[in-house]
Amino acid sequence: MSKSYRIAILGATGAVGAELLDLLASRNFPVASLKLLASPRSAGKSLPFQGENIVVEAVSDRAFDNVDIVLASAGGSTAKAWAAKAVAAGAVVIDNSSAFRMEPHVPLVVPEVNPQAAARHQGIIANPNCTTILMTVAVWPLHQVKRVQRIVAATYQSASGAGARAMEEVKIQAQAILNGETPVAEILPYPLAFNLFPHNSPLNDLGYCEEEMKMVNETRKIFNDQNIRVTATCVRVPVLRAHSEAINLEFETPMSVQEAKEILQNAPGVQIIEDWQANHFPMPIEATGRDPVLVGRIRQDISHPHGLEIWLCGDQIRKGAALNAVQIAEVLIEKNWLQPATSENQLSATSNRG
Amino acid sequence: MSKSYRIAILGATGAVGAELLDLLASRNFPVASLKLLASPRSAGKSLPFQGENIVVEAVSDRAFDNVDIVLASAGGSTAKAWAAKAVAAGAVVIDNSSAFRMEPHVPLVVPEVNPQAAARHQGIIANPNCTTILMTVAVWPLHQVKRVQRIVAATYQSASGAGARAMEEVKIQAQAILNGETPVAEILPYPLAFNLFPHNSPLNDLGYCEEEMKMVNETRKIFNDQNIRVTATCVRVPVLRAHSEAINLEFETPMSVQEAKEILQNAPGVQIIEDWQANHFPMPIEATGRDPVLVGRIRQDISHPHGLEIWLCGDQIRKGAALNAVQIAEVLIEKNWLQPATSENQLSATSNRG
Repeated sequence: MSKSYRIAILGATGAVGAELLDLLASRNFPVASLKLLASPRSAGKSLPFQGENIVVEAVSDRAFDNVDIVLASAGGSTAKAWAAKAVAAGAVVIDNSSAFRMEPHVPLVVPEVNPQAAARHQGIIANPNCTTILMTVAVWPLHQVKRVQRIVAATYQSASGAGARAMEEVKIQAQAILNGETPVAEILPYPLAFNLFPHNSPLNDLGYCEEEMKMVNETRKIFNDQNIRVTATCVRVPVLRAHSEAINLEFETPMSVQEAKEILQNAPGVQIIEDWQANHFPMPIEATGRDPVLVGRIRQDISHPHGLEIWLCGDQIRKGAALNAVQIAEVLIEKNWLQPATSENQLSATSNRG
Repeated sequence: MSKSYRIAILGATGAVGAELLDLLASRNFPVASLKLLASPRSAGKSLPFQGENIVVEAVSDRAFDNVDIVLASAGGSTAKAWAAKAVAAGAVVIDNSSAFRMEPHVPLVVPEVNPQAAARHQGIIANPNCTTILMTVAVWPLHQVKRVQRIVAATYQSASGAGARAMEEVKIQAQAILNGETPVAEILPYPLAFNLFPHNSPLNDLGYCEEEMKMVNETRKIFNDQNIRVTATCVRVPVLRAHSEAINLEFETPMSVQEAKEILQNAPGVQIIEDWQANHFPMPIEATGRDPVLVGRIRQDISHPHGLEIWLCGDQIRKGAALNAVQIAEVLIEKNWLQPATSENQLSATSNRG
């Protein structure tokens, strides 16, 4: 694969943007040219990439000319404002925001789960929410063997999910508390250092927050299974950047621990961390900066004959965001799916590529 | 109730011991005399109680003479070594360790749930594990109205559960990390500051840790319901002293949110914290130092027709340990149950007091 591609990163100066730059370099992504785009506020800064300093440009109408792939990580409103323009200019947009995820014509892709869905894109492919990505990477291989009917998830989400400034705020709060002072919450709604709180995204009429509904709805879309039942309790914890999840699975038929372990040992993107003697299982500090979803404590659920408990940790910025987006771009290149699907080649995509 | 009682605190110098002293004073417990007992290492220290300084004595064979009630919070091996001697000396032992909890003849009591079980004591009454106490206070009133068939719990447990030194260690670790240094874990098995890990109590053959099995087995004993199915994932988080729990309940018949709220609004020991507009629900920093179990996010479980999700926080040292023990002592006094039950008065206790 000697061909290389013209890449733009929209939201280059954020935490995910930094990780995208790092991943393009470390994965030897075939970059022909790299454009760094951000809000006018951040324009003029420069960021290093493979020995060069690249100046960040303000996003504009012409910014997407001569770009093949846009890796967008700039929030929902920015994505909505610019994605159509990028597509009109001939680029494929892989968007990390929630703006397009549930649009029927926009594929929602976790490359370990449903890479074939990317074939049907019409210019935009959505990157799922971090908690959903981590969960689906671990649950999909099991679901392939014995159908998962219900998931009860509880999350332990790091500050990074609320952005780089929230990560900084937690540290400042911790120092204040250690100094005997009152912690201040400006980015986060409440003090998070030495505390935790239910995820503060908007609540729906049923009392589920948006973060929880993403786990419910995105999992169904990614699995292409409208029957899988999911409930979640999402909680922000004073950890810097890796998320953890306690996941209770109910299968249609019993799934033994041995079988689940064998499946997960061979599952892409999964690493099992289980040292039962040392009581050592996945921890956020071990997942930080790493690619795989760390899975452990695979247990028979003693409360349900078809139940299984698993515990996982994953880097929220990496696999939960930037890495997944870069992997989608790699799928597009490898499968030669950069061209948007027309009605006809969508059909052929479904039959030949699925 | 003008009578007062001769109290001993075994393990007076620990975190729970300090809270016991505070509670005896603040609740105007009818204390005739107070003996503070600890290991020889701690003997000679003195602790203030109602304006007096009381010198801590080393626990000994004669330490329980002239004592009516022993509030023991000194770990399982100490409890095993001394409880029988205290009972032989005529005292009732309310023990906070796990040593006697599952013994058939030892009542395991949460005063809001099964105060009548205390009537059947034969000298020892066990205080349940903190996570179990907090969960049962919130779940029991619901279970009384519509039977709970299954509980899926995920916990967020503070450092205090591992003792006062663990609380101190988390702060030291946090300062090290903020200084750019490597955190040291001596009391805890792994760094906990800005990290978390599955509860590190010993694991059984099924992969459940002791802490999880306490939630399973103690709940059954307290509810006197061997059919209730419980699974749990217990996790230590970098919070100082209040525990949180995400609890998924499956009822025999549907329990509406409205019904659950009405039940919990009138439930002893429960305070509902729900501000849906402000996205404000129970947090550990709000539960710290307070008596009630804070419950919120009472939601219909969208994954199960008879399911309900609740979220709770409670002070692990207070209601999770010291307060529950003092409340048991108050029950014994109020009901005149200090005398151990004989075979006969056990029967009468069952019929008259139950």
